[in-house]
Amino acid sequence: MNDDYIREELRSVTGMLMQDYGMGRGIDKIDVFVQPDTDIITDITKKLLNILFPGYYREKTYRSYNTESRISVLIEDVAYNLRKQIAIALPYSSNWAGSSYEALQEEASRIVLEFLKRLPMVREYVDTDLQATFDGDPAAFFYEEIVLCYPGLLASTINRLAHELYLMQVPLIPRMMTEYAHSRTGIDINPGATIGKYFCMDHGTGIVVGETSIIGEHVKVYQGVTIGALSTRGGQRLRGSKRHPTIEDYVTLYAGASILGGETVIGRGSVVGANVFLTRSVPPETRISVKTQELIVRRGGKGAEEPVQEEAWYYMI
Amino acid sequence: MNDDYIREELRSVTGMLMQDYGMGRGIDKIDVFVQPDTDIITDITKKLLNILFPGYYREKTYRSYNTESRISVLIEDVAYNLRKQIAIALPYSSNWAGSSYEALQEEASRIVLEFLKRLPMVREYVDTDLQATFDGDPAAFFYEEIVLCYPGLLASTINRLAHELYLMQVPLIPRMMTEYAHSRTGIDINPGATIGKYFCMDHGTGIVVGETSIIGEHVKVYQGVTIGALSTRGGQRLRGSKRHPTIEDYVTLYAGASILGGETVIGRGSVVGANVFLTRSVPPETRISVKTQELIVRRGGKGAEEPVQEEAWYYMI
Amino acid sequence: MNDDYIREELRSVTGMLMQDYGMGRGIDKIDVFVQPDTDIITDITKKLLNILFPGYYREKTYRSYNTESRISVLIEDVAYNLRKQIAIALPYSSNWAGSSYEALQEEASRIVLEFLKRLPMVREYVDTDLQATFDGDPAAFFYEEIVLCYPGLLASTINRLAHELYLMQVPLIPRMMTEYAHSRTGIDINPGATIGKYFCMDHGTGIVVGETSIIGEHVKVYQGVTIGALSTRGGQRLRGSKRHPTIEDYVTLYAGASILGGETVIGRGSVVGANVFLTRSVPPETRISVKTQELIVRRGGKGAEEPVQEEAWYYMI
Repeated sequence: MNDDYIREELRSVTGMLMQDYGMGRGIDKIDVFVQPDTDIITDITKKLLNILFPGYYREKTYRSYNTESRISVLIEDVAYNLRKQIAIALPYSSNWAGSSYEALQEEASRIVLEFLKRLPMVREYVDTDLQATFDGDPAAFFYEEIVLCYPGLLASTINRLAHELYLMQVPLIPRMMTEYAHSRTGIDINPGATIGKYFCMDHGTGIVVGETSIIGEHVKVYQGVTIGALSTRGGQRLRGSKRHPTIEDYVTLYAGASILGGETVIGRGSVVGANVFLTRSVPPETRISVKTQELIVRRGGKGAEEPVQEEAWYYMI
Repeated sequence: MNDDYIREELRSVTGMLMQDYGMGRGIDKIDVFVQPDTDIITDITKKLLNILFPGYYREKTYRSYNTESRISVLIEDVAYNLRKQIAIALPYSSNWAGSSYEALQEEASRIVLEFLKRLPMVREYVDTDLQATFDGDPAAFFYEEIVLCYPGLLASTINRLAHELYLMQVPLIPRMMTEYAHSRTGIDINPGATIGKYFCMDHGTGIVVGETSIIGEHVKVYQGVTIGALSTRGGQRLRGSKRHPTIEDYVTLYAGASILGGETVIGRGSVVGANVFLTRSVPPETRISVKTQELIVRRGGKGAEEPVQEEAWYYMI
Repeated sequence: MNDDYIREELRSVTGMLMQDYGMGRGIDKIDVFVQPDTDIITDITKKLLNILFPGYYREKTYRSYNTESRISVLIEDVAYNLRKQIAIALPYSSNWAGSSYEALQEEASRIVLEFLKRLPMVREYVDTDLQATFDGDPAAFFYEEIVLCYPGLLASTINRLAHELYLMQVPLIPRMMTEYAHSRTGIDINPGATIGKYFCMDHGTGIVVGETSIIGEHVKVYQGVTIGALSTRGGQRLRGSKRHPTIEDYVTLYAGASILGGETVIGRGSVVGANVFLTRSVPPETRISVKTQELIVRRGGKGAEEPVQEEAWYYMI
């Protein structure tokens, strides 16, 4: 196979693809510059983390020893890039489709300034998550460990940032931010979810929290928990309806618990045991668990069988 | 501890390791240039995504406004690098071990051209996945959101690419591609799995699909689903046998369901409820669920106990 | 909104944040240079993988064909950077808080040299993991595939490295290393966990292994397994106590099994079936499984119901 032949073949592949791009399907979108850029959104997200935790992330580029000038540079950087991305994203909203360049810039500027002014509030929430995580985990030695290492705090912090943009009806970008968190942590929280103070996720991998979930304060959630919809069979027709549960204050959801449905309310102070599957509401101060898991125990090579009733509710006294 | 001492100690560490490398164990492979390169395979994979979704990934290096020339440059880049990596990987196959440099180059060229010619077919499949994902998810606002953010589409797209190389019996590289997807998404699909059109994975984290699985069209799979083997105790002796299930068209597998075994067939149109554990076949149009999960509910501080039968089949009407 | 207005607003945002940083909460730490650096720890971890598998990771910077000089350069690099990071981390330990720069440097040097001398021992363990993974997985074609692609081996290898630093009481850094692995693989093993030879994790996503777990030799663990604490309600008061199980030699834990509690011992040679939830000890050579999962099967559109008893113990004969 000589080089000329290969070159010819590659030209033909390009031709085939160009034709394929023209078929008008969903995949065939070729307006190159009309979407927000994933890499830029990731970079903005990292810089926002830097602003939220100014002592924890070392600024490498500027190496400024002066926090104020360092932060001020970061703020300007985020403001400039986020405004650009928001202006690109806005036309996806029916309110802004077809708007002039100037109108989009103006609205993007307004949103960015409003968003940045909310950062102290976000910090207030994140500080409570940090406290809740430290207080609840005997394996945590220092606050620093949690900020630098814990996926739960990373995911909830990014979610709190994304949620503010979601509330301001910015299309696409909030989800890009939370999917960056999902990719890094295995925790999938929709930016629409409303989450109260002192939120703590332990281990985290496999946690799913749906768009219309409402979560109170002092809620603790373990790995593999789903706060989800009963069914998405209605598909696009269900958009906008409350499809996900309400979890009241001081609730603990142990590993693998699934709470489903928009009318499901887990009452204040309740504890849901591991692997419980719930689609009905639970009144306050309820402890709910899988009653029994019947186990079969076989010993040795003889096929001896000895049924055992294993109480699966171990977390509570 | 002065610098001389430390330098001497480090020299001694190097000596210990050099000796350790010579012990002839599996870990002691030291032919430096004989494996495909993980970073290059990742880069090729990203460029292939770029080719599949030409409008969604902005080309930063060339900034060409002309799609055709941009794509043609990408194709050449992928062709050049993938051919090199395939030529490195081929000798791992017993068919190509010991082959001449020229023979390897020739076969690698043949495979790369054939692979690139299949890209329009891959795009056809991916377009159906995109549609199925949009239609099924009320939280999806735009196609763009799915292409740019959704881990399910990312994992299935990379799998469709890797699967073609798997079919052409390229060693190592297909698995490197799917493990890149696994690392980014928590979705672990073996490149050997055969997957029909309109495949949709929601949330995705924790999904496992084994090498010899066969999945039909319009199949929807939720987080934590395993389509796996009954046992891998046979280890290497089982290689090549069908160890994983067949999932027919229009099947839905809800979160945490486990379908196991090479002879297990889930019939067309069936729905498998959350956490169902199945190792036998199910005829078409079957809805199968965990019958009851007995729950214990305790209220207040008094230890009152109230058993409840919780129907675990909530997704279906 | 003109540029002057925006600039003024951004200045005011910076001012608000500067005030917010001064509130003295956990989140308000602003000593910029006192934590180990996540990116540097990640880089060190990658270089250590390179040293452990000298033939598998291609050294790009130096392109040396001579393994010895390549390894010696890597060792010096790791020694230099790891010593610096350890010296930064040590003051987090109460033993070293307030120590002089010289004392910290001396101790950091001592730890790094001791750590590097343990690498051949780490390689010995990792080689057994590699063997166990290959022997147990019919989808593995080559050792190379496992080293280059398998998340299970990556996570256990990084854990073995981090565990040595944990044993030498280095603060923060071991957890930063294992969280890098967690982020890449979805496998969350605390660096405190003690793990014997021939450890094999299949698929891996969602595996959680707690700090005080003790795992014997020839143990195989599937996706979604938790080796965890009964409850962390005691929070920080529980620090240091044995809160996680002991898993003896030749034990297999199938997907989704949860083994909880510091006094729980899974005896040698036992097999724990999928989704079993265990908080009590099991004697040696026990095969334990969920006895039955009652399933409801409905066929066709008629709502016909046909209860089915599905034996959920499929892995064992």
